[in-house]
Amino acid sequence: MINYFKITSLIILSLSLLMCATPPKKTEEGIDPGFCIHCHQQVTPGLFQSWVESKHAKNGVNCITCHTDHQAASDQKAMVFPDKCGECHAKQLQEFQMSRHSIGFDRMRIQGEYLGIPQEIRTAFCERCHIIQKRCNSCHTSHKFSLKEARDPEACGSCHLGPDHPHKEMYETSLHGTIYKITQNPDRAPRCVTCHMPNGTHDSSFGIAKGPVGTRSVVVNLKEVPISKEEEKRRREEMLGVCTGCHSRRFAKEQLENADRVKEEGFKLMEKGKEVIQGIEKEGLLYPSIAERMPHPTEGKTLVLADPQLYIGTSHIERLFFTMFKFHSIRVWKSGYHFSPAYTHGYGWSEMQLDLIDIKEEASKLKEMFKEMKK
Amino acid sequence: MINYFKITSLIILSLSLLMCATPPKKTEEGIDPGFCIHCHQQVTPGLFQSWVESKHAKNGVNCITCHTDHQAASDQKAMVFPDKCGECHAKQLQEFQMSRHSIGFDRMRIQGEYLGIPQEIRTAFCERCHIIQKRCNSCHTSHKFSLKEARDPEACGSCHLGPDHPHKEMYETSLHGTIYKITQNPDRAPRCVTCHMPNGTHDSSFGIAKGPVGTRSVVVNLKEVPISKEEEKRRREEMLGVCTGCHSRRFAKEQLENADRVKEEGFKLMEKGKEVIQGIEKEGLLYPSIAERMPHPTEGKTLVLADPQLYIGTSHIERLFFTMFKFHSIRVWKSGYHFSPAYTHGYGWSEMQLDLIDIKEEASKLKEMFKEMKK
Amino acid sequence: MINYFKITSLIILSLSLLMCATPPKKTEEGIDPGFCIHCHQQVTPGLFQSWVESKHAKNGVNCITCHTDHQAASDQKAMVFPDKCGECHAKQLQEFQMSRHSIGFDRMRIQGEYLGIPQEIRTAFCERCHIIQKRCNSCHTSHKFSLKEARDPEACGSCHLGPDHPHKEMYETSLHGTIYKITQNPDRAPRCVTCHMPNGTHDSSFGIAKGPVGTRSVVVNLKEVPISKEEEKRRREEMLGVCTGCHSRRFAKEQLENADRVKEEGFKLMEKGKEVIQGIEKEGLLYPSIAERMPHPTEGKTLVLADPQLYIGTSHIERLFFTMFKFHSIRVWKSGYHFSPAYTHGYGWSEMQLDLIDIKEEASKLKEMFKEMKK
Repeated sequence: MINYFKITSLIILSLSLLMCATPPKKTEEGIDPGFCIHCHQQVTPGLFQSWVESKHAKNGVNCITCHTDHQAASDQKAMVFPDKCGECHAKQLQEFQMSRHSIGFDRMRIQGEYLGIPQEIRTAFCERCHIIQKRCNSCHTSHKFSLKEARDPEACGSCHLGPDHPHKEMYETSLHGTIYKITQNPDRAPRCVTCHMPNGTHDSSFGIAKGPVGTRSVVVNLKEVPISKEEEKRRREEMLGVCTGCHSRRFAKEQLENADRVKEEGFKLMEKGKEVIQGIEKEGLLYPSIAERMPHPTEGKTLVLADPQLYIGTSHIERLFFTMFKFHSIRVWKSGYHFSPAYTHGYGWSEMQLDLIDIKEEASKLKEMFKEMKK
Repeated sequence: MINYFKITSLIILSLSLLMCATPPKKTEEGIDPGFCIHCHQQVTPGLFQSWVESKHAKNGVNCITCHTDHQAASDQKAMVFPDKCGECHAKQLQEFQMSRHSIGFDRMRIQGEYLGIPQEIRTAFCERCHIIQKRCNSCHTSHKFSLKEARDPEACGSCHLGPDHPHKEMYETSLHGTIYKITQNPDRAPRCVTCHMPNGTHDSSFGIAKGPVGTRSVVVNLKEVPISKEEEKRRREEMLGVCTGCHSRRFAKEQLENADRVKEEGFKLMEKGKEVIQGIEKEGLLYPSIAERMPHPTEGKTLVLADPQLYIGTSHIERLFFTMFKFHSIRVWKSGYHFSPAYTHGYGWSEMQLDLIDIKEEASKLKEMFKEMKK
Repeated sequence: MINYFKITSLIILSLSLLMCATPPKKTEEGIDPGFCIHCHQQVTPGLFQSWVESKHAKNGVNCITCHTDHQAASDQKAMVFPDKCGECHAKQLQEFQMSRHSIGFDRMRIQGEYLGIPQEIRTAFCERCHIIQKRCNSCHTSHKFSLKEARDPEACGSCHLGPDHPHKEMYETSLHGTIYKITQNPDRAPRCVTCHMPNGTHDSSFGIAKGPVGTRSVVVNLKEVPISKEEEKRRREEMLGVCTGCHSRRFAKEQLENADRVKEEGFKLMEKGKEVIQGIEKEGLLYPSIAERMPHPTEGKTLVLADPQLYIGTSHIERLFFTMFKFHSIRVWKSGYHFSPAYTHGYGWSEMQLDLIDIKEEASKLKEMFKEMKK
């Protein structure tokens, strides 16, 4: 089916090319850039216009510079990989490769969540963001590659949003985000890049000392090894170096340390929920039981609570915990560091407390019901 | 009570008119526009200012041109209907009448949801948006009727938002919406009207080939008849004609076809939920039972799952399905076409999976509990 | 631990001060402003820049004018209280003291929710907004104190948002907020301050006639005494005086009166939920029972439904009601007055109906289960 469409598209594309009046001039170096532009100016005027307005166009970087040749562009769906960009932007590529962005696609491919869903769904959700590992134009949007656009909080927010990592929402509901939204002036209030990519570094893991990836309790490096206490301290100092642009060191340090404690309090609540469910499982009251259900794609036939817990085919009480850890717990502590009272409290802490009520009562109901059943 | 207020208001209005220094000059053609302006400049300065800044004002279109005369404006609460606007804007009216916007109010009035709630609630929610059938100023806001305002995604988003049709949120969390938000440049990224009202057509059903109205699985025409396969293909081609402004035809086609499959996957999940509840109903385990409860306003004494299911007075398990179909299913597939990973996945697909867990466990609890009750 | 950090910070601060090349010139009036600026220009350039751009800087209001002296600024964490601002802005202070903003911190400190959570959590959520009682820079953000920023809806929205008081979200999804967002023109559509602080009054309780604080059914004055019917009428007239800038008095009055009725309808639904749970409690079916659980911090060992109900340690059925009254009921009626169909209906009314289904079915399950248990 897909192949049929691909072939049809190629035929149409070929016909379009034939319709171009002037035949392309081939040179030794490859295809003349005029070859592409001649047609694409007509068939994809928006794409062409974006490139015309780019710094690339002004500096002689044209279609062929990045896409190599027309056939290659068609074959690989016109995709240009970071290594290609790095030929000119070496420093940025090197920094990028130190950030977790550079392993986003590979990490996705071994996640249980990814493994458990149909390919079309993977294409529509997961890959659309995790492709950042392979596409500088995740942030530097084609074909203008505008710095203004890439630095805007909205650019970061096109992936860092939603129930399980509402960085965009937390920032927007903080005083930082509020003042930036009003003034659009990065000297007046920080954007995402002010704190996470200071001085234009492309290592976006800069300064992250306590915030784990996902819901793990420690920060890990690119090899998934927890960072040392010394590295943790060094990173905190890095971040404080940014804060003190506007705040006193004492104030900034207090705010970050309070966030550390908020994180611990959130994790404590999560542990309470976990214990209740572990108890229920020991009593054999989960439905469907671990034995009866599909094994976890990476963990096998075991009770998985918190990362890498899945949202498919579990019992209701586990699903209550899924919501608690995946959506609510993360809002509590990540909002702590992003200074959003609405997300720490209203969308986080109070929801966790409500989850805990639900988990406890569900446990007592399961005990009661299964007691009856066993009679 | 209401009449009392109406009378009071009329008296106050009349007194205000009497206070106008200059008596109105009546002509054969009706009331002199100066009559209205003279007072309204004082009593509703904001309204007056908006009109002054409008293209209407510049072209001699004044109060009387649209509101006919002062008494008529008072009687009908100053409302001007599309037919009136069409006297000058004939093409736009004709196109508008081909769109579903033109039957919005009539369709609302026969919906079960609408029929089941108090009038003041209808006024505050339903009618505020569905009035679009009768009011061009739903989009072209009074009294400036600014094209810039009507074309802004925010204008469309004032109705197309919220849990059951978050078009605004899906667009804003897509790369299209992100780039437009940053640049405010419709040549850089599409707005709603770029794809749904290209070249200014007022037939906003343009190019919609697969997305049903509500949660039905097919697109219907204005007479509620499903469109033919040929019409479906024609509309898809229409939409592709817009996409290829910026994207290759192959890429655009693949994206839309992936969305088609995402829709099917979402509908499959919904069917699983449906089957569980149909089973429960056959076993007589719904509480309140269909027999005991109020009949559905349009469907009568029958189990209604998915459109036109209501959210009032059903059993808990049906309400779980209501959330699944009305809020979560729609996000999965509509986000597919609007390219928002957050809404397809985080707010859609994963929520549907959690709903399914809840529905299944609720079913097993109902079976267990009612078994006990029957003992 | 905290003290240790404080001391460290003070030492670092002191060392920074010693590093300033020029020794401060002390005068009889206190410290020379140049003393602060000399260092802070280097150590907190963003803060310095904001002040430089402020009207304060232009009018000779410098660090010492507000912070008194350097030691005092350090001791009190540089905080400046409204009384200090009132030395120059007497009228604004006086008006502010008539508004509920002026008792925000004191009211918070006696709330059960506040009393029941750890201090770090209080710091991260509650105090960040309620501090408005003690900080004019909650709205007039330091150190620019820009009027443009303070008047922007985003400024109000940095506190007035989230699940239990989504004023920001309701405004943004109304036609008022939509047009303002597009035009950024306060003559075209109202901002928060247009209606709630007309003519710059700092009494933000202006014109609020029917909306209670929290979820109480009446408006109270600063001494928590319900306002009289006469005062209610006077306030409604105040608000109508704002509406009639753009709308006819009749239209505005009808809209507000419809909102009054929407509020009543929402409260009726809430009462239905309350009755079910009161019945369950009388039958002794709450788990944990009132006797078994921690007493309510302000109400003691009693069933608390609606304000000041807590979200911690209650039964599941009470928690269902918590969500109904605290999140959903408030959206129904507050959106009524803010004209957001999405929040009145989708996020409000329909959610309340779903809550009611859940509460009723939970009650019937509890009856069934406990009947079995008692056998």
